[in-house]
This record gives sequence, structure tokens and C-alpha cells, in this order.
Amino acid sequence: MPPSPTAALRALWFGPHTIPLSQTFLLTPLTYGLVNLKPIRPGHVLLATRLPHPRFSDLSPDEVADLFLQAQRVSRAITRHFGAQSLTLCIQDGKEAGQTVPHVHLHVIPRNEGDFPDNDDVYEKLEHTHRIDNEERTPRTPQDMAGEAEMLRKEIGEWNTDTDC
Amino acid sequence: MPPSPTAALRALWFGPHTIPLSQTFLLTPLTYGLVNLKPIRPGHVLLATRLPHPRFSDLSPDEVADLFLQAQRVSRAITRHFGAQSLTLCIQDGKEAGQTVPHVHLHVIPRNEGDFPDNDDVYEKLEHTHRIDNEERTPRTPQDMAGEAEMLRKEIGEWNTDTDC
Repeated sequence: MPPSPTAALRALWFGPHTIPLSQTFLLTPLTYGLVNLKPIRPGHVLLATRLPHPRFSDLSPDEVADLFLQAQRVSRAITRHFGAQSLTLCIQDGKEAGQTVPHVHLHVIPRNEGDFPDNDDVYEKLEHTHRIDNEERTPRTPQDMAGEAEMLRKEIGEWNTDTDC
Repeated sequence: MPPSPTAALRALWFGPHTIPLSQTFLLTPLTYGLVNLKPIRPGHVLLATRLPHPRFSDLSPDEVADLFLQAQRVSRAITRHFGAQSLTLCIQDGKEAGQTVPHVHLHVIPRNEGDFPDNDDVYEKLEHTHRIDNEERTPRTPQDMAGEAEMLRKEIGEWNTDTDC
């Protein structure tokens, strides 16, 4: 059951799931950043809208601007901390584009030379996240995820402690 | 030789290349939209910053906001005109992420069920654009490209005829 707009602003929703604050590293009234249970590369994180809009076209102009301004802050932090030479920035906007959680989210993926046998393998991993991850990768522990989120908060210069944000 | 900021605002640059106005479909003081010589799907278009910034982190806040607000307009037009069920929105931010033209640009790619044998093949095509396109696809004619640009201009509700824009 999708949350009402009011409920969505009182908890961090990701589609039908709620996200623990410990696994987030950035929070504005419109956008939040969350670490991944199964990142395809170290430092692969997500930015999502606070409201659970299914599609990019559903976002208000303020939500669009904030999502990508925050993406720029996160990109810089990820680049510094993970020594990323490049970044893959991607929205799978709808299920025919590989979207598995019907809630607008941007993937930010650090990239380095030779990180995948073929450069486009990054997308194969991304597309197959929900199909083959269970076989290929062990989910991280909540402690690992909280540790990464804490590191990113410091790198970005968060934390906004206003829980009404 | 990259253009000076002044020159960049008097012509449409894409990295070291200039883009004919006839192949563009959207123009603001900060962003422009261009059709592809070799789209990986019908309706695969690009949005680029007017200034030839190499990386996403180089963009000013106004440029970030405008790029994605225009992307939303284009997404809606592409969805309507090409009957896209979904969209892939992607920035290859740096050469290790597959960027071949060192100028920030967003790919907007219409997606439909079964459009590629495997969903992630879209990225393989994207990554290999400059490696295998010459063998696999014939470039479109300038007339084809101008025709698509004109259609998109109408669909989006452009044209801004102010050539100083």
C-alpha cells in the first residue's frame, strides 16, 4: 500500500519499503540518499524522492531540481571517497527500462578503468540486480550499511538532525 | 580546441563539434536538445549543456536544474510521440563510464517491452556506439535528422526563434 503524502514525509519510503534512517546519508525535504543492500560496485548508492512517485514525469519542478542538485553533491563525495575516475548516473524510468521498485530513484555508480571486464557490464549488473543477485552476491549486514552511510554523511557534510525535515 | 564561453553561447557545440540548428529541437540559455546520427532506438535523443563542461560536477546549480527540467519536457514528448512505455535516462560521466564526447549530455531512450532481446542490451548498444555503429548501422541522412527535430519541436511546443538565446 503506497503511503499517503503526509506519511511519506514522516518516514523514508522506497516504493512499498521503509528505509531505516541509519542506511541514509542525505536528507532534504524533497530528496534522500540511501546505501545499497547489494551494490554493484563499492560506493554504488541511490537517491530517491521523498514522495513515492513512480515516474520521472510525476516529479514537480522543485523535486527535479533538488534530486539532481543533491546528486551533484553525492557525486563529488563518492568521487573523493572512492577515488572514482568516472560515474554512471542512471534512472530506469519504468519497468520496461528495468525499474524494479516503482519509486523514482537515481543510481550513482563509481567507475574506474577496468572495473568490469567490458564497460557495459555495469548495466548488466544493474539490470539483473533482482534476478541474479541472490545467487551472486551476499547481502551486506546492517552494520556495514550503517557504516557506509555514516562515512558518506561526513563526506557530504550532512547531518541535518531536524527529524521533521 | 574547446570554444570560449562566449563562443559556446553563439553556436551549439557538442564537445569539439558544432551542431546544426536543424538537428536541435529545444534551446534554452543553458541547455539544448539534439537528435542522434545513429540512435539505438527510434526517439533516442540527447540533451546537452550549452557550455561544453566535461563533467557533471562542473555544472552550476542553474545548469543542473535546467538540464533535468528540460529532460522532463523531452521525456513527456518522447513518451507521447513514440508511445514509449518506459525511458532509460543516463549520463556517462567521464570516459571510464563510457563517455565518448567530453561534454555533459543526458541520453533519453524510449523503452518498450521486448525492444531488446535482453533488457540490458540497451546499455551495450549505448556503450558501443562509437565502436560498432559503423559496422552495424547506417548513419541517418541530414534530412531524416532535421525531420525528427522538427517533429520534436512541435511535440515539445518549441520553437524559440530568438537566435541570441
